[in-house]
Amino acid sequence: MNDSSARKFAAEFLGTLFLVAAVVGSGIMAERLSGGNSALALLANTIATGAALAALILTFGPISGGHFNPAVTFADALEDGVSWARAAQYMSAQILGGTAGACIAHLMFGLPIVSISHHVRSGPAQVFSEFVATFGLLCVIWGCSRACASTVPFAVGSYIVAAYWFTASTSFANPAVAIARSMSNTFSGIRPADVPYFVFAQFGGAAAATILFRWLAPGIEANAKEVVLPRVHSA
Amino acid sequence: MNDSSARKFAAEFLGTLFLVAAVVGSGIMAERLSGGNSALALLANTIATGAALAALILTFGPISGGHFNPAVTFADALEDGVSWARAAQYMSAQILGGTAGACIAHLMFGLPIVSISHHVRSGPAQVFSEFVATFGLLCVIWGCSRACASTVPFAVGSYIVAAYWFTASTSFANPAVAIARSMSNTFSGIRPADVPYFVFAQFGGAAAATILFRWLAPGIEANAKEVVLPRVHSA
Amino acid sequence: MNDSSARKFAAEFLGTLFLVAAVVGSGIMAERLSGGNSALALLANTIATGAALAALILTFGPISGGHFNPAVTFADALEDGVSWARAAQYMSAQILGGTAGACIAHLMFGLPIVSISHHVRSGPAQVFSEFVATFGLLCVIWGCSRACASTVPFAVGSYIVAAYWFTASTSFANPAVAIARSMSNTFSGIRPADVPYFVFAQFGGAAAATILFRWLAPGIEANAKEVVLPRVHSA
Amino acid sequence: MNDSSARKFAAEFLGTLFLVAAVVGSGIMAERLSGGNSALALLANTIATGAALAALILTFGPISGGHFNPAVTFADALEDGVSWARAAQYMSAQILGGTAGACIAHLMFGLPIVSISHHVRSGPAQVFSEFVATFGLLCVIWGCSRACASTVPFAVGSYIVAAYWFTASTSFANPAVAIARSMSNTFSGIRPADVPYFVFAQFGGAAAATILFRWLAPGIEANAKEVVLPRVHSA
Repeated sequence: MNDSSARKFAAEFLGTLFLVAAVVGSGIMAERLSGGNSALALLANTIATGAALAALILTFGPISGGHFNPAVTFADALEDGVSWARAAQYMSAQILGGTAGACIAHLMFGLPIVSISHHVRSGPAQVFSEFVATFGLLCVIWGCSRACASTVPFAVGSYIVAAYWFTASTSFANPAVAIARSMSNTFSGIRPADVPYFVFAQFGGAAAATILFRWLAPGIEANAKEVVLPRVHSA
Repeated sequence: MNDSSARKFAAEFLGTLFLVAAVVGSGIMAERLSGGNSALALLANTIATGAALAALILTFGPISGGHFNPAVTFADALEDGVSWARAAQYMSAQILGGTAGACIAHLMFGLPIVSISHHVRSGPAQVFSEFVATFGLLCVIWGCSRACASTVPFAVGSYIVAAYWFTASTSFANPAVAIARSMSNTFSGIRPADVPYFVFAQFGGAAAATILFRWLAPGIEANAKEVVLPRVHSA
Repeated sequence: MNDSSARKFAAEFLGTLFLVAAVVGSGIMAERLSGGNSALALLANTIATGAALAALILTFGPISGGHFNPAVTFADALEDGVSWARAAQYMSAQILGGTAGACIAHLMFGLPIVSISHHVRSGPAQVFSEFVATFGLLCVIWGCSRACASTVPFAVGSYIVAAYWFTASTSFANPAVAIARSMSNTFSGIRPADVPYFVFAQFGGAAAATILFRWLAPGIEANAKEVVLPRVHSA
Repeated sequence: MNDSSARKFAAEFLGTLFLVAAVVGSGIMAERLSGGNSALALLANTIATGAALAALILTFGPISGGHFNPAVTFADALEDGVSWARAAQYMSAQILGGTAGACIAHLMFGLPIVSISHHVRSGPAQVFSEFVATFGLLCVIWGCSRACASTVPFAVGSYIVAAYWFTASTSFANPAVAIARSMSNTFSGIRPADVPYFVFAQFGGAAAATILFRWLAPGIEANAKEVVLPRVHSA
C-alpha cells in the first residue's frame, strides 16, 4: 500500500470510527439521561449522529471521499469511481474502524470494551426499512454529487436525521455500522443474528439507486465520474 | 413523453414519495415512542420533515426543479417557468408519488398499506393557517430563487420547520401531501372531507405570493425566469 | 415614496410580520402541546424562531437588507448604511409588520386578534440580558456582513437560537418584536409596562456593538459600507 | 501590542466570552425549566452551544481565526500558524474572556458573579473522553481548514453538538472553557480539582491530531499554512 492509499485507508478508518463512536456513545448517554423516554433518547441520538456525519464528511471527504460505509463504496465501485481493489481496502478500513469506534465509546462510558447486543431487530418490516433507507441514501449521494458535490455533507447529514425517524429500523443504512453495533449491548445495538439481513438489504438498496441514477442523472459520465467529493490531494 | 420529460416525472415522483414517507413515517415513529407527549412527537416529526425536505431538494432539484408540490408547480406555471402541459405531468407525478410514499411508510412500520384518516382538521382557523403557510412558502421560494437559487433547499427546509409550529394546521402547504396524508390514519393524517378546503387555501396562498412577488422582486423577468433551482441537464 | 422605497417598506413589513407570527404562533402551539413542560415548549419556540429568521433573511434580504428590527436599522443608520429618513420608514414598517404578525398568529389559532400580555419580564437581570443579547446580535451582523455577507442569514438564525437560552429574557433583542409581543397574552408575551426598559437596553446594546466594530473591523469603510446583505435590485 | 494585535486579542476575548456565556447561561436556563429531566436539559444546552459556536466563528474568525480555545491555539502554533508569542496573547485573551463570560451569565440570571463548582467530573473515563473529544475537534479543524476553510464554522459547531452526547464528559474540549466552568456552580460546572486532568487530556488530544494530520493531509504546507479561517484585514 503506497502513501496515498494508506492515507485513504486511515481516513476511512478514522471517519467510521468517529461515526460509530457518535452513534453508540450518544445512544448510551441518551439512554442514561432520558429516564425511559424513548422519543427523547432517539431525538438526542439522531441529532448527534446527523451532526457528526456532516462534520466527518467535511473533515475526511477531501482525503478519501468520506464513504465510511461499505454500501457507498460498493456503489462507487459499480460506477467505476473506485477500483474493486481499492473498494476492498475501503471496506476493510470501515469494518475495522467501526469496531474500534464501538470499543472507544464503551471505554469513554466505563463499560466493557465489547458486549454482544441482544437488541432484536428482525422481520420483513425492518429489512424493508433498511432497503428503503439505503436506497434513499444513495439517491441523495448520487443526486448531490453529480450536481454540486459541496452539498453532499449537509444533504447526507440531513437525510440520516430524517431517516432515523421515518424508517422502522432507525436507518442503519451502513453494513460497517451494523456490524459494529452488534458488538454493543446498548441503546443502539443489534443482535448479531439480525445483521446479515440488514446488510443484504443495504447492498440491495444501494445497487438499486445506483442503477436508477444511471438513467435519471447520467451527467456524471461526462464530467465528474471519479469523485464523490472534491479532493485536496492528487498525491 | 421523451427521455427528459420522463426523468423530470421520475424526479418529482421520487421526491414526493420520500417527502411523504418522511412526514408519515416519522409521525408514526414519534407517536409510538413519545408516550402521549404531543410536543415531543411534533418536534421529532418537524425535524425529520425539514431535514428530509432540504436533502430531497438538493438531490432532485437539479433534475426537475424539486417542486414535490402542486402549489409550487402551479405558481411556477403562472410565471411561465414550466408550461401548463408540463405542470400537469408534474402534478400527476406528485400525487402518485405522495400516495406511494404513504403506502411505503405503512409497509415499513408493518401497518395496512392504506387506512383512511379520521383526524379532523377543519374550521376557518385551520384553513386560514394553510393560506398563510403556503403564502409564506412561495414568498421564500420566489425571494430566494430570484436572488440566489442555491439557498432554496436550506430556506425551504428551515421555513417548513418553523411553519409546523407557527400555524395551527402544522403547515401541510402542499396539495399532494394533503391528499396522501388523508390515506394514513396515523399521527400526521387528515380526514378526507377536510382536504378540499386545505387544497383550495394552498392554491390561493401560492397565487397571492406569486402575484405579490411580480411587483416586489421583478428581477427574475430579466435573467432567471425559467428556473427554480439550477439544473444539471439541458437534455 | 417611490417604487424602490415601497418595495423595501413592503419587504420589512412582511419579514417582520412573519418573524413575529413565527415567535408568537410557535409559542402558542408549544404551550398547547407541551403539557406544562416549559423546557420543551421553549425548545420548540427556539427552533421555530431560528429557522424562520434564517429563511426570512434569505427571502427578503436581497430586497431591503432583511433588518426586521429597529435596533439593526438604527445601527445601520449610525454607519451611514441607510439614511435616517429611510431608517424612519424601515422602523415604521417593522412596527406595523410586527403588530400584524401577532394578529395573524392569533387568528390562525382562533384567539382574539389582540390581547394585552400580563407576562412580567422586569428587573435588572432581564434588562441586562437584553443589552447583552442585542450587543451580541450586532456583533454577529457586523462581523459577518463585513467579511462574507452571505453567511449573515445562517449566523443570525444560529445566534438567536443560542441567545433564547443563554439570556434570562429569552433574547427579544428587537424593539418591534417586543412591542408586538406586548399585544399577545400568550407564551411569548411581555407586559406593556416592561417594554420601554427592553427597548432602551436593545438600542444601547446595538449602539455599543456598532461603535466597537468601528475599531474592531474597520474594513467595511473601504468596500461595503452600504449593504448588510447583497441586494438584487438597484432600481 | 499594536493595533492589529489588539484587535485579535479583543476578538479572542469576546468570542470566548460569548461562548462561555452560551454554555453556562443555557445550562442555567435549561436546568431551571426542565424540571429534573436531564436529557432535555442537555439537549437544550447542546443546541445552544453548537449554534453559538458556529455564529461566533463566523463573526470573529475573519479577525483572529476564531480559536476561542487554548488547545486550538496550541495546535496552530505547533504548525507555525501563529507564533508562540502571539499564542500566549491568544491564550490570555481566551482565559480572561471565558472567565468574564461565566460572570456575565451569572449576572444575567441574577446569581452571584462567581461560585465555585462542586460538580465532580473525575476518573479515567472522563479524562479519556476529553482526549477523544479534543482529538476529534482538531481532526475536524485541520481536515476542513486545509480543504475548504469556509466550512470550518459549520463543521466545528456540528462536531461539538455531536460530542456533547458521544463523550462521557459532554466534551469540554477547551481549557479556557474548563477553567471558566469551574467558577460556576451550575448545570455546566466542573469542580476545580478536576480541571487539570481535563486540560492535560485536551492538550494531548490536540497534539495527537495535529501530528497525525501532518501525515494525513500535508497539503497545507504548500498553500495555506498560516490561516485557520479566511481573514478580512491584513493590517
